[in-house]
Amino acid sequence: MLHASALAHDDLMDGSDTRRGRPATHRALEAEHRAAGWRGDPGQYGAAGAILLGDLLQGWADELLRGCGLGWDVVGPALEIFDRCRTEVIAGQFLDVSVQARGHADVEAAMTVLRYKSAKYSIERPLHIGAALGGATPDQLTALTRFGLPLGEAFQLRDDLLGVFGDPATTGKPAGDDLVEGKRTVLVALALDAASPADARLLDGALGRALSDQEVAILRGIIDDSGARAQVETVITELTTRALAALDASGFDDAAVVVLRELASAATQRVV
Amino acid sequence: MLHASALAHDDLMDGSDTRRGRPATHRALEAEHRAAGWRGDPGQYGAAGAILLGDLLQGWADELLRGCGLGWDVVGPALEIFDRCRTEVIAGQFLDVSVQARGHADVEAAMTVLRYKSAKYSIERPLHIGAALGGATPDQLTALTRFGLPLGEAFQLRDDLLGVFGDPATTGKPAGDDLVEGKRTVLVALALDAASPADARLLDGALGRALSDQEVAILRGIIDDSGARAQVETVITELTTRALAALDASGFDDAAVVVLRELASAATQRVV
Repeated sequence: MLHASALAHDDLMDGSDTRRGRPATHRALEAEHRAAGWRGDPGQYGAAGAILLGDLLQGWADELLRGCGLGWDVVGPALEIFDRCRTEVIAGQFLDVSVQARGHADVEAAMTVLRYKSAKYSIERPLHIGAALGGATPDQLTALTRFGLPLGEAFQLRDDLLGVFGDPATTGKPAGDDLVEGKRTVLVALALDAASPADARLLDGALGRALSDQEVAILRGIIDDSGARAQVETVITELTTRALAALDASGFDDAAVVVLRELASAATQRVV
Repeated sequence: MLHASALAHDDLMDGSDTRRGRPATHRALEAEHRAAGWRGDPGQYGAAGAILLGDLLQGWADELLRGCGLGWDVVGPALEIFDRCRTEVIAGQFLDVSVQARGHADVEAAMTVLRYKSAKYSIERPLHIGAALGGATPDQLTALTRFGLPLGEAFQLRDDLLGVFGDPATTGKPAGDDLVEGKRTVLVALALDAASPADARLLDGALGRALSDQEVAILRGIIDDSGARAQVETVITELTTRALAALDASGFDDAAVVVLRELASAATQRVV
């Protein structure tokens, strides 16, 4: 629910037209306004509706977790993690918006965005919330960080690769989607560092504008030739290895280890 | 904090440039972007920042109430009211956006918007939350509804009058602000019902666009002549009388009655 809320706002902020092949909230409302010939600006109507839907869902997310029916002794600690998660993802999102506007993200800044906006939000904190609801000890939460944070980083680095090299038929997103959106990902930051000055200028200048299939192919070539793609694959492998080693050292019971190992595999080896 | 959150989103949705004489969040960020000559669209940057600030504050509002330090036996019930309040104000806001887009709000629809977006949110629910934290009984909460809901309605009707007839030097808002924003208030709905067809057409056509001082004066005249202004004053008096009668019948102790009576006076007789 927090995620659905974030997506309504995220699509609006990014100016995304679609979400999983269907119109994004603000675009759907905008189209309704236009078709009905209502008063005022259709875009403003769509934006207002998406903002309000996101606000409503954010409230409901909180309400659902609080009212899940478990005792306050476990819901209270889970809510504290939920609060932290919400603040982290918002801060990560603003840092992302900020580095994109400034037109420059070094590898470290891109890695910080990735950590707060994605690794913690998608993997570490959800594990923490579930564990807290299960009455986890502080040591168990720490073990989940040692497993979940590198895994979450690997998960997002895979996403960055798919955002540039993914097959639209499989991902459901346009080719080179991240490039068109001008995302200053770790992959892009590494490529800008390692490419020749001419290639780096070309890549930098292309970020954030509409691109033909041919242009996407050229930019993919630059990122590949720079070594950034291979470097990200290496880092994904290292992070996954680290996550799995932490899982082995966690002392979790076998049933939990099996499920978490499947999660690690699904998060890092996916093609969508 | 919930209110600050709502304002950041509200100003963005309304396209308001200022808030209490200072730039609205999205406008301040937009200006920063423009001055720095950053990449991308300044308006989109400002909107993203305002959305994220509102999201952050909404989360913090929840966190602050939950962490206020009182026992769960009183914080739990207060949070349930807080949840309801949040859902009500979002629903009222969307109804408002919706009737403005449709270009027509009858008196009943305008009154529903007023009740959910303002009367409950500004007066009834805050009283309930405070009372719940004080360990109020269900009967006391009902008594606060009987007092707070009509008072809240009167409060917003006063606001509607000020939004059309208020003195910019006192309110800090442009003359005829609600007309320029195209707000379908109860006052406007009554005027459209009661004015001559020609006057109603003129008023209806003017809502939601930039207006000269002279045009504002003409529209004020139409609303005044229609009898809507006097009618709203009458309703304010009736609602306030009803609220005060409910207060007399509430059985609250004298100290509470004195404070609530002051609130009633401040909310309905104000000039700003």
